[in-house]
Amino acid sequence: MARRRKHLYKQKLGTSPGTLTYIGQDIEHETRIRRIQYNEATYEIDDSGKLSHCRLPSAENSLITWISVDGIHEPKVIESLGQQFRLHRLMLEDILNTLQKPKLEQYDEDTLFVTIKMLRYNATVQEVDTEHISFVLGRQYLLSFQEEREGDIFQPVLKRIVESAGKTRRNGPDYLLYALMDLVVDNYFMVLEQIGSDLEDIEDRIVQNSAGQPTLASLYGLKRELAVIRRAIWPLRDMLGLLIREESPLMKANTNPYLRDLYDHVMQVLETIESYRELMASLLDVYLSTVSNRMNSVMKTLTIFSAIFMPLTFIAGIYGMNFDVMPELRDPLGYYKIWIFMGLLAVVMIIYFRRRGWM
Amino acid sequence: MARRRKHLYKQKLGTSPGTLTYIGQDIEHETRIRRIQYNEATYEIDDSGKLSHCRLPSAENSLITWISVDGIHEPKVIESLGQQFRLHRLMLEDILNTLQKPKLEQYDEDTLFVTIKMLRYNATVQEVDTEHISFVLGRQYLLSFQEEREGDIFQPVLKRIVESAGKTRRNGPDYLLYALMDLVVDNYFMVLEQIGSDLEDIEDRIVQNSAGQPTLASLYGLKRELAVIRRAIWPLRDMLGLLIREESPLMKANTNPYLRDLYDHVMQVLETIESYRELMASLLDVYLSTVSNRMNSVMKTLTIFSAIFMPLTFIAGIYGMNFDVMPELRDPLGYYKIWIFMGLLAVVMIIYFRRRGWM
Amino acid sequence: MARRRKHLYKQKLGTSPGTLTYIGQDIEHETRIRRIQYNEATYEIDDSGKLSHCRLPSAENSLITWISVDGIHEPKVIESLGQQFRLHRLMLEDILNTLQKPKLEQYDEDTLFVTIKMLRYNATVQEVDTEHISFVLGRQYLLSFQEEREGDIFQPVLKRIVESAGKTRRNGPDYLLYALMDLVVDNYFMVLEQIGSDLEDIEDRIVQNSAGQPTLASLYGLKRELAVIRRAIWPLRDMLGLLIREESPLMKANTNPYLRDLYDHVMQVLETIESYRELMASLLDVYLSTVSNRMNSVMKTLTIFSAIFMPLTFIAGIYGMNFDVMPELRDPLGYYKIWIFMGLLAVVMIIYFRRRGWM
Amino acid sequence: MARRRKHLYKQKLGTSPGTLTYIGQDIEHETRIRRIQYNEATYEIDDSGKLSHCRLPSAENSLITWISVDGIHEPKVIESLGQQFRLHRLMLEDILNTLQKPKLEQYDEDTLFVTIKMLRYNATVQEVDTEHISFVLGRQYLLSFQEEREGDIFQPVLKRIVESAGKTRRNGPDYLLYALMDLVVDNYFMVLEQIGSDLEDIEDRIVQNSAGQPTLASLYGLKRELAVIRRAIWPLRDMLGLLIREESPLMKANTNPYLRDLYDHVMQVLETIESYRELMASLLDVYLSTVSNRMNSVMKTLTIFSAIFMPLTFIAGIYGMNFDVMPELRDPLGYYKIWIFMGLLAVVMIIYFRRRGWM
Amino acid sequence: MARRRKHLYKQKLGTSPGTLTYIGQDIEHETRIRRIQYNEATYEIDDSGKLSHCRLPSAENSLITWISVDGIHEPKVIESLGQQFRLHRLMLEDILNTLQKPKLEQYDEDTLFVTIKMLRYNATVQEVDTEHISFVLGRQYLLSFQEEREGDIFQPVLKRIVESAGKTRRNGPDYLLYALMDLVVDNYFMVLEQIGSDLEDIEDRIVQNSAGQPTLASLYGLKRELAVIRRAIWPLRDMLGLLIREESPLMKANTNPYLRDLYDHVMQVLETIESYRELMASLLDVYLSTVSNRMNSVMKTLTIFSAIFMPLTFIAGIYGMNFDVMPELRDPLGYYKIWIFMGLLAVVMIIYFRRRGWM
Repeated sequence: MARRRKHLYKQKLGTSPGTLTYIGQDIEHETRIRRIQYNEATYEIDDSGKLSHCRLPSAENSLITWISVDGIHEPKVIESLGQQFRLHRLMLEDILNTLQKPKLEQYDEDTLFVTIKMLRYNATVQEVDTEHISFVLGRQYLLSFQEEREGDIFQPVLKRIVESAGKTRRNGPDYLLYALMDLVVDNYFMVLEQIGSDLEDIEDRIVQNSAGQPTLASLYGLKRELAVIRRAIWPLRDMLGLLIREESPLMKANTNPYLRDLYDHVMQVLETIESYRELMASLLDVYLSTVSNRMNSVMKTLTIFSAIFMPLTFIAGIYGMNFDVMPELRDPLGYYKIWIFMGLLAVVMIIYFRRRGWM
Repeated sequence: MARRRKHLYKQKLGTSPGTLTYIGQDIEHETRIRRIQYNEATYEIDDSGKLSHCRLPSAENSLITWISVDGIHEPKVIESLGQQFRLHRLMLEDILNTLQKPKLEQYDEDTLFVTIKMLRYNATVQEVDTEHISFVLGRQYLLSFQEEREGDIFQPVLKRIVESAGKTRRNGPDYLLYALMDLVVDNYFMVLEQIGSDLEDIEDRIVQNSAGQPTLASLYGLKRELAVIRRAIWPLRDMLGLLIREESPLMKANTNPYLRDLYDHVMQVLETIESYRELMASLLDVYLSTVSNRMNSVMKTLTIFSAIFMPLTFIAGIYGMNFDVMPELRDPLGYYKIWIFMGLLAVVMIIYFRRRGWM
Repeated sequence: MARRRKHLYKQKLGTSPGTLTYIGQDIEHETRIRRIQYNEATYEIDDSGKLSHCRLPSAENSLITWISVDGIHEPKVIESLGQQFRLHRLMLEDILNTLQKPKLEQYDEDTLFVTIKMLRYNATVQEVDTEHISFVLGRQYLLSFQEEREGDIFQPVLKRIVESAGKTRRNGPDYLLYALMDLVVDNYFMVLEQIGSDLEDIEDRIVQNSAGQPTLASLYGLKRELAVIRRAIWPLRDMLGLLIREESPLMKANTNPYLRDLYDHVMQVLETIESYRELMASLLDVYLSTVSNRMNSVMKTLTIFSAIFMPLTFIAGIYGMNFDVMPELRDPLGYYKIWIFMGLLAVVMIIYFRRRGWM
Repeated sequence: MARRRKHLYKQKLGTSPGTLTYIGQDIEHETRIRRIQYNEATYEIDDSGKLSHCRLPSAENSLITWISVDGIHEPKVIESLGQQFRLHRLMLEDILNTLQKPKLEQYDEDTLFVTIKMLRYNATVQEVDTEHISFVLGRQYLLSFQEEREGDIFQPVLKRIVESAGKTRRNGPDYLLYALMDLVVDNYFMVLEQIGSDLEDIEDRIVQNSAGQPTLASLYGLKRELAVIRRAIWPLRDMLGLLIREESPLMKANTNPYLRDLYDHVMQVLETIESYRELMASLLDVYLSTVSNRMNSVMKTLTIFSAIFMPLTFIAGIYGMNFDVMPELRDPLGYYKIWIFMGLLAVVMIIYFRRRGWM
Repeated sequence: MARRRKHLYKQKLGTSPGTLTYIGQDIEHETRIRRIQYNEATYEIDDSGKLSHCRLPSAENSLITWISVDGIHEPKVIESLGQQFRLHRLMLEDILNTLQKPKLEQYDEDTLFVTIKMLRYNATVQEVDTEHISFVLGRQYLLSFQEEREGDIFQPVLKRIVESAGKTRRNGPDYLLYALMDLVVDNYFMVLEQIGSDLEDIEDRIVQNSAGQPTLASLYGLKRELAVIRRAIWPLRDMLGLLIREESPLMKANTNPYLRDLYDHVMQVLETIESYRELMASLLDVYLSTVSNRMNSVMKTLTIFSAIFMPLTFIAGIYGMNFDVMPELRDPLGYYKIWIFMGLLAVVMIIYFRRRGWM
């Protein structure tokens, strides 16, 4: 993670403020631009991809315009869109910068800028992949920008617009913004579920005492990924709180309950993250205590062996001495007597260790 | 816990906002609906379970209406109730979602939505079971929703209404809401008492030095359950604080002292949880220090045995050598002298270890 | 502590709000009620204990009335007092509930309710004992309630009233409330001093390296008692802060500096507690590092013994072999040479270990 | 530290509010009182020590009066000064109580009370010594109180007044207050420097691996002293912040930048303390990890010795057996062969341990 | 670090407030002063270095004046500049004090003082070098002060002014201030990248199990440097937040989005620092757990050797005894039988240890 990010920083350094450069991973597909226009009665999708079709809708236009931009790696495309919708250059810079953290900014009375993160969990390398998503909300339009690394994220909402004149069609661009954000937040639950499942595997291994250094490494890996997720989601809390409290002229009153619902979901995600963190801390503690218990058990074994065989070996050594005068050696039963003595000694030691709870 | 929850998430993913789906554990019994109407003078219980009887009471109606819904697993029932009482779809969604965390929401001047958690402690598996409870408070009515997994929770309040024209009958639906919440909070004390009792067992085992890995595991288990409880109760603090400070038009002034009392109880619960957490941390520390002490004692035993028998065995080895010329071996008293020497050596070692406090 | 509390909870569960039940330890002595009336010119003490004498003083009465109730285990007494002074039932419930944490509540313009904790340190069992104390401040009267488990706490203030027409007599019931609270807070210093003295004993034992498991246990015991104290005192900070900032109509302006002084004392107590907690953490660290150092020293001893005697024993073993051809054995000086060799070897090992700083 | 404080508490317990008692260490020298009067044009120092000369200056008096009291162990002196300047008894109590933590109190429009701590570091016992300093700022006067245990702290400011009609003489008593506080804060840097130097010694010892239990003890000692310092300085931050924000009528506007400067210095001191705390935590971690590394190295040595000599001794034991039939013993080259075999075995073990990185 | 700072403190102690002394490292080059004047149409650079050219621009002057001072080690230069621009002495003191932490101060309506830190990472000694930078913003001018230890930092901005009549030339001195600060903040990313790269090396060593005490030392070194960086950057957050919220008369409205952008960058830097800190904590934990695992493995080896060879050596000792009557010794196959028995015993032990997972 750290490695990947570093190189992205490099791209950024030295550019002067307002310079439009794409900062992100290499992307091969072409930028795809769609213009969707709809109201309760009708809808129209312009798939031609012509930038000239994407203009600030005139005030008389009763249709809502949604410009969906898939791919943000061509600064020129973003720039010309920005000119047509009269967007601040710094806003465009943020759209192009995949390192930009989630934020909400009211540029003027008529423009609200929102940028959030789409998350995907790559189970094989246990890494979370973030995709940079931005929205520009105007009076009658919504611009949405996505990296589109793995298919169009917003497909389900487009489908709803096409399929029925439902809530999405009946409401304004603010509801559309909500619906798209809701889609992204719903995805967070999926990512958490996958992480939760990996966490359970680790838990099982630790509880079954079969955890070793690799388990620990993957626990720390998950911990770090969770931190990445947390940083990606945390700002959403304040952003939504702000939208709910200080009603922007762009957000209609009846969208408010939906925003509150979204806020609730975000809180639930954050709480789950928190509970995962606690679980991880517990698992670590249990693991460390297991290691220490094992060490204890190793030491006990060693001590028991030493305490039993050292005295016995000593006795055997005694009667291996070559003194001329050693009366016991002459005793015809001496050998048997010494066996009995050593047996008793061993039994005494074993009883002693049992008493101390070491065996 | 983590496991159970995961599957519930799955049920949720992909639904569009406002879709009514029950998210929770499978429940077999039928939904039971009762309509209780009362004022100081009279009361009437309609047990027929007919949804058509449950309507928004007309303004002239001087009776207070309490609709008690036991079972929230049938979205259709909730939906038709919602239509009759003109409730927002997102509110209904929250009633059906057992994963929804406690919250209080003022939907409009006339409707207050409250959802909290009932807790039960399952001592055999040492797990806390949460039940989702919701209330909708209107001018003249209260709707209550419970999962009813183990009998009707609100029975005692119903009994009070039936038995005497006491405080509950004399006051409005806001007092009824308070009375029902008070019942739930009282239950928290019971759950804490059971956890406290389990904690004492663990404490006893740790203090008596008989704690092992299983004790530790159950300590961590309790810790996690306590975290679940804490998350379930914590929001209540802010909810009640809000109700007390910003008096809603639905809450009458003379209900305020009762809410403050309830707030006090919640704080007491939270404080007990905090003190349990501290106790757990102390127990863990004591346990770990016990383990380390035991290790120390094992090591000392090993060292003492080694330090006494190694030199003795060495001496025995010396006189087991087969050199042609070894004057001591010829000495008729040599054997006895060497015994005395070895005895002295052992005594010296023992004194040395006693001095260092190892024996 | 945990044990004692648990049973008290049980007494509480299931009671309906406003029910007056005594929740606390069994007390045998009878409730004692005294009525003290005073102003700058005169004073009168009614020791008859008759409840009928304790009435809301009439407005014309220029005397200040102080009703001192010693013993709160008889709900009936409290109830009838409550009726005469027109107190809210929930306030009476709080007076009877020894588990109620410290709080300040303004019930109406004319009544201020304060409840705090008296602390006593039982040095033999190293446990802190809390006593529940409540005050009701009115325009011309003050009610004080104490459990009176070990003599009347408020004796010194009563003595001051009797002895001279000093500050207490010159001021109103608000100053009396301050004076009684000051008495309680002064006691906190005493408790802290005793705990500090126990802490010093533990420190001495740890520094002198003679600390074992029992020392650790008593350190953890003190830590827990300190947490009990902290929880009992902490709310006082906010209570006094509130009284100072939002001047209640019941508190006269010239009592304010005294309240600020009391606030200062409470802060000093809390700071001392904090410094004790830090000290405890340090002591624990030092103790654990001592244990680990001892372990280290044990291991070193073991290693030195092994490293010296293992090679020597091996050499002795070599010359104890029975090969037919072993030239050294035939050497008349062989035995002496081998002694010299072994001596040299031991010296080399000792020098080696000294160099590594193990001896 | 704890010990010293305890006895001071004792002096305090049981006194009634407003009683003037000196709470502090025994001091032998006499109280010295000086009256300094100055304005831009002139100055006059009255060294007679007569209390009667110290009176509230009349309104027409254009001179600024500074009463410097060195020694606060005589309550009578403080009391009579208090009467002449009409100070509240609780303020006098705070002046006499060396345990009083730093605070700022606006008693009325005309009087501002400030108390702070002078710090001195006693390098030989590694302990920080605090001296209690109080100021009373009026319209035209400043009273300063110090314990004066080691010479007059305020000498440099007095010298500035005497030597030139500089900033101090041109400004009012508020600037004088600032100048005196600045002097005290400057001293904090000196104390920190000394502690920093002790810390460096400890660091050197730990880095050079020569740290033992005494180093640890002195690290913990410094940690505790740093906590004492922190508690003494921390309140200054809020006090100055308050003075800067809510301009008191006693503080002139042009003194504000100086106060901000002082605030900056205090922040710098606190930050240095914070960085020392972090350094201490790091040093502790490094030390503990060093100890654990040493243990590891001891264990490795032991294991290597055992693993090499146990098999060899076993082999020697084999050929020390007295069986009648042992063909190897008869082999004339057997002795040499066994030496070669044992040499090979030792080499194999050494290679094995080198491979595992233990040697 | 600590060492370097200490001596700087010494320079400071004892100086009276407002005294102008350079507090910082010795610098040899001469102070270089440049006056740059520009507006959209034209620009002029005066490189003569004459102080007399640097005067408060008259109100009619439509050009923006930027005085760039490289080198702050000559108090006289700063003082005379201060007189010409009528700056407060305390501000000059802060310009000269390289220990001054970042701050923003509005001295009067017309003057804004800003001081921040330039950071450089010295990879060879793994230390962060801070350079003290100050700005004074007036209506029509900006003064910038740098230590200039390694070349002019502000070169890129000067180049932009010279090269094109771009944003910098079109905007006022507030934008210039922003541009210079942006330059410094951009540098922070570079420093973090270098630290991140060092951190990766450490991570690799720890993951590959080849980390020893030196790795740990350099991890702690990095941790400390990161703390230095954090302290240098943290205040910027509040400073910018203040500038954004409370629009100063000196900051034009259209500069605000740029400040918000800068704020975003600072937040990103702080977040990266936070994530590095977390990474460090994880690395430490992994390292410690590796050490403990290694210890475990050493102990197991020791125990296995002891447990196998102790019984065998004991048996060999038995048959080395010299009893007259030992029937086994007479058995012609005895020697071979005992070999078989010992072999079996060794196999049993090995199986036992494999079962316990120790081999």
